[in-house]
Amino acid sequence: MAEKPKKPQKLRARLPRGLADRGPAELAATRAMVETIRAVYERYGFEPVETPAFEFTDALGKFLPDQDRPNEGVFSFQDDDEQWISLRYDLTAPLARYVAENFDQLPKPYRSYRNGYVYRNEKPGPGRFRQFMQFDADTVGSASPAADAEMCMMAADAMEALGIPRGSYVVKVNNRKVLDGVMESIGLGGEENAGRRLTVLRAIDKLDKFGLGEVARLLGPGRLDESGDLTDGANLSDEQIGVVLTYVQGGDKITVEFEARDRVRERPRVTVNIDTGHGSPPVDDPGAPFDYYDNESRVERMRRTLADNALYHAGLDELAEISRLCASSGYSQHQISVDPSVVRGLEYYTGPVYEAELTFTVSDDKGQPIQFGSVGGGGRYDGLVGRFMAENTPATGFSIGVSRLLAALRALQGPEAPRPLGPVVVLVLDRDQIGRSMAQAATLRAAGISAEVYLGASGMKAQMKYADRRKSPCVVIQGSDERDKSEVTLKDLIAGSAAAAAITDRAEWTESRPAQVTVAEERLVEEVRAILSRHE
Amino acid sequence: MAEKPKKPQKLRARLPRGLADRGPAELAATRAMVETIRAVYERYGFEPVETPAFEFTDALGKFLPDQDRPNEGVFSFQDDDEQWISLRYDLTAPLARYVAENFDQLPKPYRSYRNGYVYRNEKPGPGRFRQFMQFDADTVGSASPAADAEMCMMAADAMEALGIPRGSYVVKVNNRKVLDGVMESIGLGGEENAGRRLTVLRAIDKLDKFGLGEVARLLGPGRLDESGDLTDGANLSDEQIGVVLTYVQGGDKITVEFEARDRVRERPRVTVNIDTGHGSPPVDDPGAPFDYYDNESRVERMRRTLADNALYHAGLDELAEISRLCASSGYSQHQISVDPSVVRGLEYYTGPVYEAELTFTVSDDKGQPIQFGSVGGGGRYDGLVGRFMAENTPATGFSIGVSRLLAALRALQGPEAPRPLGPVVVLVLDRDQIGRSMAQAATLRAAGISAEVYLGASGMKAQMKYADRRKSPCVVIQGSDERDKSEVTLKDLIAGSAAAAAITDRAEWTESRPAQVTVAEERLVEEVRAILSRHE
Repeated sequence: MAEKPKKPQKLRARLPRGLADRGPAELAATRAMVETIRAVYERYGFEPVETPAFEFTDALGKFLPDQDRPNEGVFSFQDDDEQWISLRYDLTAPLARYVAENFDQLPKPYRSYRNGYVYRNEKPGPGRFRQFMQFDADTVGSASPAADAEMCMMAADAMEALGIPRGSYVVKVNNRKVLDGVMESIGLGGEENAGRRLTVLRAIDKLDKFGLGEVARLLGPGRLDESGDLTDGANLSDEQIGVVLTYVQGGDKITVEFEARDRVRERPRVTVNIDTGHGSPPVDDPGAPFDYYDNESRVERMRRTLADNALYHAGLDELAEISRLCASSGYSQHQISVDPSVVRGLEYYTGPVYEAELTFTVSDDKGQPIQFGSVGGGGRYDGLVGRFMAENTPATGFSIGVSRLLAALRALQGPEAPRPLGPVVVLVLDRDQIGRSMAQAATLRAAGISAEVYLGASGMKAQMKYADRRKSPCVVIQGSDERDKSEVTLKDLIAGSAAAAAITDRAEWTESRPAQVTVAEERLVEEVRAILSRHE
Repeated sequence: MAEKPKKPQKLRARLPRGLADRGPAELAATRAMVETIRAVYERYGFEPVETPAFEFTDALGKFLPDQDRPNEGVFSFQDDDEQWISLRYDLTAPLARYVAENFDQLPKPYRSYRNGYVYRNEKPGPGRFRQFMQFDADTVGSASPAADAEMCMMAADAMEALGIPRGSYVVKVNNRKVLDGVMESIGLGGEENAGRRLTVLRAIDKLDKFGLGEVARLLGPGRLDESGDLTDGANLSDEQIGVVLTYVQGGDKITVEFEARDRVRERPRVTVNIDTGHGSPPVDDPGAPFDYYDNESRVERMRRTLADNALYHAGLDELAEISRLCASSGYSQHQISVDPSVVRGLEYYTGPVYEAELTFTVSDDKGQPIQFGSVGGGGRYDGLVGRFMAENTPATGFSIGVSRLLAALRALQGPEAPRPLGPVVVLVLDRDQIGRSMAQAATLRAAGISAEVYLGASGMKAQMKYADRRKSPCVVIQGSDERDKSEVTLKDLIAGSAAAAAITDRAEWTESRPAQVTVAEERLVEEVRAILSRHE
């Protein structure tokens, strides 16, 4: 199409990248979802609290994942006293500030929830927005793994309350202490190894997607994908990679052997050996995959490795406790599942971390399978409140990505329910009689019926089209004849369009005037109600 | 109090000025209010749509009131492609962008509503925040005064739905064309007089507060208030002031005479003469105040002045039409009231403007009367969508200041309803038995009862205090004795505290153990329900 010459005075109506408007269907679905989650959280004794959209930049801190450049990731501006202010990038850092500021007034432990928009100054992409809604719950002031276990149970309850059947979701749980123990044991402890640690964690995070062999490449010399793109590796030794994979696979001893590490662009061969021959209790089926075991047995299997790493085993103790508590409250390993490959990107986590994942697959328009994967996650962040306070204040929390979960729910539930009926539309045949039309609409509304007057300048035909577009169940018509006799004509648009479909002859149509009735004006409310009751 | 020595590592937990956190009571009240307004707007056929928190700065435009410095009033930052982006300062400018962007997909006229936070980079003060919530409704695509009349009616309905009795609110309506006509007639038309016009409009806006004499000073040499502060005047001549006051008083001819204009610091005497001797129809009671007349008569009175100003009379024609439509739909001048002193600050208004004002007075803590005044307003902004489009697209909208209205409602309704009961608290007497406590809480929740386990590390006494603080109706206790017998003890905290108040003797207390019952664990749900049912 040829471009029209620009009119220089006119602005282009468009949004900045990574932002979106939300229409009636999405807003209604979001509201319903938020109300369902709210009900679950309140049943757990959580109470609402909300913080503003922005905070002092230093109060938020820099805990974003994958943040290679300083000050990236957040939207910031300077206040008129030159202090830096940032839009919140999550709901956790502001909560930590809130709790520290109101510490003495709050019950301890303090359970709270909130939903709201967060803002990320990142490169937007498909399904990746710069403003999106999170729904968070946090327990501050409890160091007990019971608080983490409760978060996992509550996440599972929320998924089921939203109509996601058992088996179609799983809440995976792991522990940062366990991961840190693994890092220590391969010599990657300490501040100076933070960058390499991150590369290892990212590789672990890919286990679900790539499997052991490709993760071994990411831990070793690097990985060349099908498109020819090279992802740099963590350059661990074969032995170090063996330790990481043994851990990530859940305790079966794994050894790896790379050929020609220096020729990474030729995808050097890597051999992965899994020794499943342990056979010690509680493993009664040595060949079974990790998934086969209940959570407590999984933790026991993980104990086989890194016997002399205290941090690793302290983390496993917490995972064992969480496993026991979930089991005794009736949650199976298919609902809440110990999973050593869970990492969680945010830097502030200090203990248990958890992730809610959807496990069902739907087909997209082209029949390709889509997996929604993670729709929420969280963990323990014992240091975050303590940034503001002398006392250390343990805390744990869970955050749902509302838009992503909503997209998944819509896919799960199949085609949308048909849009609800719109308002009754009162047509305006004579502009100078619009007062009478408005009074009719007011009468209907006073009776609790949604009704509007046509406010445009077009004629009868366009008004009927407008009513169709509004999905109006019924229009009210009063021409001069009807007005003189204090009558109104009501047209049932739903019955009318069904009848129209059945009638093929124009004369018959004019004759029969389907689904149309003329009644005394004083009977307006009753007659409209009668039409509406047919379509409820 | 002596300041403690600072620990340099700790951040101070505080919010930037003009921002506030919101707790459970405020959030619940806001939610209830928003739901009520939403129901009214949906009954009028309005549908929800939401836009993001920020927009391109040029899309928002600069229409803020009292904006003496460029770029003041909004929070802005540069995107990485160097384009300026601003946080929205109202919900109208983003809607105009939305409509222009989606014009072909929308029904016309297009009625929509939305609520959300807006952001103003202004000096905060008491009750003046930099983030606050607005609830807007807009009709785009109708040039008819019927659309403005509908907004006024809907505003009145919203006030009444919120429980504000008739007579305790008024929706005032005026017209920018009328105001512009007055400006023209005193020679203040044209771009070059924009600053002086603003001073005149601000003076008119003060009529309710100050009365005619003080407004005359603001229109003339300036006004010295009781504290000795001087507000500069618009420096109109006596004759010009007479024209403005005649208008603002509703048509009775007013003349003014200043003595010693140059000695403004001595508060020069000003004589205001009102000639009420018109007596021409429809004025049947020439001495009656303007408020006495119904809206149509008010407009007729206003027609007496500025006979040769076409703009003024075009504005009055629209006001007359709005008056007739409101009256024929059953709204009296006590609900929707033509008021020549209504100005509205935003620059983009082009026709009818309206303002919802609360007229009741409450007493503050010190017995001083408080008036809440304006809680919302709006008007016609025919040029705003047209900034983006070749076609001019008429529009009119109304915006409620949610926080201010909420404060007024709370004052009107008197003391808050008592905080609703909190969750049942399951105490934890033996930390290693917390799994059993969690299972009990899960059982209660599965039965729809809000319940939580105490997750802290403190003993029995602190746990009871915690339950009190949570306003728990009932605690569940299971010591080792009870556990061995598969029993639980339930303590009714409400009955208990009533009984405790009646018992004065410690021995009697220990003996009678008021409001406490020990039951089989399997009867947990039934027995808790029995306690809850006593306090519903």
